Amino acid sequence: MKYYAKPLNKLINELSKLPGIGGKTAQRLAFHILSMEDREAFELAEAIKSAKEAMKYCTLCGNLTDADPCSICGDDSRDKSVICVVESSKDVIAMEKIREYRGYYHVLHGAISPMDGIGPEDINLKSLISRLQDERIKELIIATNPTIEGEATAMYIARLIKPSGIKVSRIAHGIPVGGDLEYADEVTLLKAIEGRREL
Amino acid sequence: MKYYAKPLNKLINELSKLPGIGGKTAQRLAFHILSMEDREAFELAEAIKSAKEAMKYCTLCGNLTDADPCSICGDDSRDKSVICVVESSKDVIAMEKIREYRGYYHVLHGAISPMDGIGPEDINLKSLISRLQDERIKELIIATNPTIEGEATAMYIARLIKPSGIKVSRIAHGIPVGGDLEYADEVTLLKAIEGRREL
Repeated sequence: MKYYAKPLNKLINELSKLPGIGGKTAQRLAFHILSMEDREAFELAEAIKSAKEAMKYCTLCGNLTDADPCSICGDDSRDKSVICVVESSKDVIAMEKIREYRGYYHVLHGAISPMDGIGPEDINLKSLISRLQDERIKELIIATNPTIEGEATAMYIARLIKPSGIKVSRIAHGIPVGGDLEYADEVTLLKAIEGRREL
Repeated sequence: MKYYAKPLNKLINELSKLPGIGGKTAQRLAFHILSMEDREAFELAEAIKSAKEAMKYCTLCGNLTDADPCSICGDDSRDKSVICVVESSKDVIAMEKIREYRGYYHVLHGAISPMDGIGPEDINLKSLISRLQDERIKELIIATNPTIEGEATAMYIARLIKPSGIKVSRIAHGIPVGGDLEYADEVTLLKAIEGRREL
């Protein structure tokens, strides 16, 4: 658009490539950045560059980290008998925030999705299998998302691992705490009934 | 938060300083940036830096520009008899997008607001007065926002300029096109009646 000077136009363009940032928001953000202190704006630019440069994937669990192995894999005080399998690094953070789980993780970076041409060899599964050679591991908690792809991945991993004698469990799906039965969708309600526990 | 590695934490922090970007959105954006191609992420960082470095204010009209005078002030084919006074550079773009106005602009960078301690000397008003020495200028269109501050600024400028014989006008306020009388607030409706025109 010729309304903007070139450097501003470029900035708006780059910002609008981010997820959930449309043209209007990109414009607002760009004008805000221009109104910021030089130091602040440069710090933002620097943070993008240095995060991109410093962050890599842990060779053990696949989690995003600035050290290898990551701080979780490197933490010897954790419970070595259990690995929680998640789809993304964001899920690791969600799990860590409950401050209850003390085992290790394995990040798949996706889920099996034949529709999108993503097979078992396209996700970070091979290194999980080799990690399971460690005899201290007793349980694999599969915490992939309750989507078709996440479920398919969970089933695939379960079938693959079970013969080795390691316990494979799936996190519970049901009515969220604070949620209302009335507004729950049918699948969630079905999962809640299937997963019922004796009191 | 100790859940994130330092460079990631820093990036999330910097992103969440942007307007309308909360913690969750900043996290999502940060993870997206980390998943981007190196080249793309660096381009975003570079765009922030170079926009910040290249963009300055036009010494004539106060508009954001990468050249001085800006492309509008430097455009000799425009109508030299009229200046449109706006609060911000964003308003210049909004005006330019209608492709109808062919005069020049003057950006105030704010509005008079005694409540916030912003007086006439705190906005870009002095240079407007000196611009008005140009005898070719016949009209000043005041397009500040229809807020208390914008109205106060409009009144102030009108009273200041009128004795010089230059025509001072205010853009019309009323029901927006496509809007519904039923849902218009009282002040807008009042403005619409006050500003009625004979057909």
